[in-house]
Amino acid sequence: MMNAIAENRLINLLAERFRRSPLQANGLHESDAELLRIGPSTYLAATTDTLAEEIACGLYRDPYLIGWMAVMASMSDLAAVGARPIGMLISELIPRDASEMYLRSLQQGIQDACAKCETYIAGGDTNAGAQLSITGCAFGVVRGSRTPLGRLGCLPGDILFATGPLGTGNAFALAQFIGGTGIAFRPVARLREGRLISSLASSRMDTSDGVLATLDQLMRLNGTGFDLDDGWERSCSPEALAVAAAHGVPPWLLLAGEHGEFELLFTLPEAREEQLLEHLAGTSCAPLRIGRVTTEPVITMPIRSERTPIDTARIRNIGNDHYGDVETYIAELMTIDDELQKGVHHVHA
Amino acid sequence: MMNAIAENRLINLLAERFRRSPLQANGLHESDAELLRIGPSTYLAATTDTLAEEIACGLYRDPYLIGWMAVMASMSDLAAVGARPIGMLISELIPRDASEMYLRSLQQGIQDACAKCETYIAGGDTNAGAQLSITGCAFGVVRGSRTPLGRLGCLPGDILFATGPLGTGNAFALAQFIGGTGIAFRPVARLREGRLISSLASSRMDTSDGVLATLDQLMRLNGTGFDLDDGWERSCSPEALAVAAAHGVPPWLLLAGEHGEFELLFTLPEAREEQLLEHLAGTSCAPLRIGRVTTEPVITMPIRSERTPIDTARIRNIGNDHYGDVETYIAELMTIDDELQKGVHHVHA
Repeated sequence: MMNAIAENRLINLLAERFRRSPLQANGLHESDAELLRIGPSTYLAATTDTLAEEIACGLYRDPYLIGWMAVMASMSDLAAVGARPIGMLISELIPRDASEMYLRSLQQGIQDACAKCETYIAGGDTNAGAQLSITGCAFGVVRGSRTPLGRLGCLPGDILFATGPLGTGNAFALAQFIGGTGIAFRPVARLREGRLISSLASSRMDTSDGVLATLDQLMRLNGTGFDLDDGWERSCSPEALAVAAAHGVPPWLLLAGEHGEFELLFTLPEAREEQLLEHLAGTSCAPLRIGRVTTEPVITMPIRSERTPIDTARIRNIGNDHYGDVETYIAELMTIDDELQKGVHHVHA
Repeated sequence: MMNAIAENRLINLLAERFRRSPLQANGLHESDAELLRIGPSTYLAATTDTLAEEIACGLYRDPYLIGWMAVMASMSDLAAVGARPIGMLISELIPRDASEMYLRSLQQGIQDACAKCETYIAGGDTNAGAQLSITGCAFGVVRGSRTPLGRLGCLPGDILFATGPLGTGNAFALAQFIGGTGIAFRPVARLREGRLISSLASSRMDTSDGVLATLDQLMRLNGTGFDLDDGWERSCSPEALAVAAAHGVPPWLLLAGEHGEFELLFTLPEAREEQLLEHLAGTSCAPLRIGRVTTEPVITMPIRSERTPIDTARIRNIGNDHYGDVETYIAELMTIDDELQKGVHHVHA
């Protein structure tokens, strides 16, 4: 089932020869950050994320944003396992002609994102390269005797939550590529929220690849499905909805595109909903209830008032099939919406 | 003094805006791996290293070697602080046209190097990129109540050792670029040796950038100099010396080129030499005594039987000044040797 997704296939091929550490608590694909038991009740959480395609295709142009995202992408992975960050390493491939001003802005983005997450750059590496790319590696600690919660564990009937408004990542991408009304994009990793939900949630994953890709991956890992509520659109950021409207893009595609908003999606047994609200009382965290875990491994959502099954595998593979061709990528998403309107549904989970 | 070296200048610029973690035990430039105090007597050692220039310029062509080196470069940094590895993350920028066979060989090199170091790949990231580049990030643990030993601490009079034969990295590079007699190059990080010398040595650093660059960096950090023994040539690998001879390259340039052998250089108060041998008795580790720490911040070595001061700053900056131009790089080194023969010595430390 994992192999239906080109990205999972590549990861499986690359990891095929690797032996797993006896200290590692999570299996392949099962966690946003890797979890290694380093003490009786201490896990090291570690994750790495490279910004390369996002820069090469023109999605991230502002060096400050590039620096910010290099930190936040990894921090968001730590958030998704409830870790407290210890620090980060940054490795940069820098074009020889990059100006000092450009580099200063890049580094300021890194520093400000670190400050926002109360963490630090511990060190790094630099190389000359034809095109800027930047690899962040973050490590943190999760304390507790139980294996930290990752992507596994949701059960049919559990409620699905998001830690904050959805759609900002794809609205930002839309404006970057097509122009017109823009949207501020400066996500903040949900580190605090991640820790607060650790003992209550039944599974979780960050939306770095977009909401539907996240649900698709959780579906494949847990063998469950997801059904989004009638009110899912109210969980979208109003600014994101405005960008979609301005471009004539149907709102549900804000969840379908592969540039996510770096929120966490998490599931919770219904009986724990009150406890969740108690845990979060007095914080600024107000999770948005967006759906339910279902028995059949399929993702459905109301689109134009009709409960619609979504071919998330097809959506996730567009980026791979049309690599670097943003125009075709958007056109393909619009084609899928078109087919849904005409009632052509081919779901291959 | 650090700013005389282009690479140090770039690192200083990039790190200028960063705040340092209160947990971090080492300053900028002071350690091969970053050291963060995570418990009363536990330090996390973390390091990252990207292979990009080595691949782009044709130094590393065999995918197996690329994978091997992606692991060993970071493991060597852990060795240089006496850490025991916990695991690694690997992020790869992979060209879209890379074959499965190529990728399998790359990943096998990674796995075999991990097995050699008794460590594991915990996870990673993949992106499409125009040219293969691969970032390793390694983490390990150093136990003990004292700050783990890094590059700082040597004093005039201390003895200088290498953990193994020198010159293999540059001999390999010479054969790769010029052709002719080759040399096997598959360095193994000196993890065990690094741990065994931890309580005795007064400073240490790995030779990933070549022996003279390593000594130059230790000189700048400690304010001391180094004087290589008459017998330094006996510490070179016979195969490396043969490659140099076959190409008409004077042996001392095996220490000058910037492709190192991933040995450790370490210093030791003379009074502890016997203790060192006791510590290493029963192991296969036989450190080579190659010189002395001196008071004046200059590096001298016998070349053609004459004690010669070496302009290591000039040597270290060649790669930066003639980026990617291997022919000029080698020609510049030969020019410096020529000038030494003619007695033109301009040392700017």
